[in-house]
Amino acid sequence: MSPAALPIRIEDPDDERIAGFRQIREKDLVQRQGRFIAEGTVVLSLLAESHANDGDFGAEALLVLENRLAGLEPVLAKFPADVPLYVASRPVMNAIAGFDIHRGVLAIGMRRRHPDAKTVLAHLPAGALVVVAGGISNHDNIGSIFRNAAVFGADAVLLDETCCDPLYRKAIRVSVGTVFKLPFVLGGSHHDLIASLNEAGFSLYGLSPQGQVDIRQIRPTGRMALLTGAEGEGLPAEILNSIQTARIPQAPGVDSLNAATATGIALFAIASAMGRL
Amino acid sequence: MSPAALPIRIEDPDDERIAGFRQIREKDLVQRQGRFIAEGTVVLSLLAESHANDGDFGAEALLVLENRLAGLEPVLAKFPADVPLYVASRPVMNAIAGFDIHRGVLAIGMRRRHPDAKTVLAHLPAGALVVVAGGISNHDNIGSIFRNAAVFGADAVLLDETCCDPLYRKAIRVSVGTVFKLPFVLGGSHHDLIASLNEAGFSLYGLSPQGQVDIRQIRPTGRMALLTGAEGEGLPAEILNSIQTARIPQAPGVDSLNAATATGIALFAIASAMGRL
Repeated sequence: MSPAALPIRIEDPDDERIAGFRQIREKDLVQRQGRFIAEGTVVLSLLAESHANDGDFGAEALLVLENRLAGLEPVLAKFPADVPLYVASRPVMNAIAGFDIHRGVLAIGMRRRHPDAKTVLAHLPAGALVVVAGGISNHDNIGSIFRNAAVFGADAVLLDETCCDPLYRKAIRVSVGTVFKLPFVLGGSHHDLIASLNEAGFSLYGLSPQGQVDIRQIRPTGRMALLTGAEGEGLPAEILNSIQTARIPQAPGVDSLNAATATGIALFAIASAMGRL
Repeated sequence: MSPAALPIRIEDPDDERIAGFRQIREKDLVQRQGRFIAEGTVVLSLLAESHANDGDFGAEALLVLENRLAGLEPVLAKFPADVPLYVASRPVMNAIAGFDIHRGVLAIGMRRRHPDAKTVLAHLPAGALVVVAGGISNHDNIGSIFRNAAVFGADAVLLDETCCDPLYRKAIRVSVGTVFKLPFVLGGSHHDLIASLNEAGFSLYGLSPQGQVDIRQIRPTGRMALLTGAEGEGLPAEILNSIQTARIPQAPGVDSLNAATATGIALFAIASAMGRL
């Protein structure tokens, strides 16, 4: 097995062909125009799968540390020949990226399509399970929500417009690349998302330590959506008052679970009750 | 209500009385001789509780941003008068700490006692539930394991000698201060901990995606211990071969859960089955 594209050697960090990989941490902070940086082999495998299967995400270029080229062949071979593969020595790669890329491989990717919530929901099966999050501003939590959703077989993730971008470099890494696998929408208000879910026949449960129903008592029927709110504040009262709510039982007198962990536990309970696990 | 100790104004970042608060990030990286830095009100409340109730942790000094003094009175008042309370302006506080302390309050604490695993286990009730972790090298994961253990009412946390320190500043913060609440041991090999647990009559279950028993099928009797391994590798094969093992069911073809999240879900399932939630 050999890489689908022939490696192109980069000697000059100012080479225009690798401009997209330059000063990555600065790019993390500014508008990235639909592009993102993916790093590490598991993440790149999922990006390659989406690229090859005409999924929502494609790869534009790869940059690899020269002494890792042989070891990375299995993952590089998953990308077709029209994705250029650049190779650099460690000093050149570090000068390009602006810090030490110890994983030894980077990709520039882009989102090919931006389906809206209605379109995503319309394509889901009858017994679908969906995660909805509002106000999640922490990239670790966004990434963890995707990882947990994928592990428990959720069909899609809907994020309101106040959530941070799951295609931020750290969020992609924490998600272990599942952002490329699970259909997701980022945009619209919590209310818009709830309206779309209601229209698509979903039963909605808002997660809250003060939820009406113990999550272990829910007997799901049809399509299910689990809603989670911001770290700290949780879901706004007006939303909790407009839908059914569920609580994860816990010991008294302790702070509640982290938002991503709570979503993971709720998914475990509901996917179990739906007979999906 | 007023702070138990009268505030002492610090004008000079080089003042010897606040030497323990100097250049905090550098201190994070070196030997801290049993001392730690705690930050934020929820964390400080739990430290104050341990201090006041002769728990394993005590406070040595507090440093507060002057314009936050009034708002922080409820938490500061939980510390007795023998804990000195230093107050500084923002420029002085930032010069002391070496970065912007946006939470506005810091404490230096120390561990008063270091009970070993046998002593901790001997003090637990008949139906105890314990978390055991080996090889957790990430401070976020260590902190999350404590938070999840506290939320689901675990009685103690045992960490083998290859785990990182839960009293590292970031781990304390991620644990939301539960490191001060839950009895814990850091030290000994995984084998030593397993021997102590066996001697104390615990049923041991190692968590692994390849575990023999579905975690939902376990019917606990007596004392229960849940073991988790390092991120990535999980528990070593020789340990998995020497104890009972449990798996959290998941969708096929996806990477497994994060170690801390897996521990949270296993605790939720087992604490439920034990009738503790």
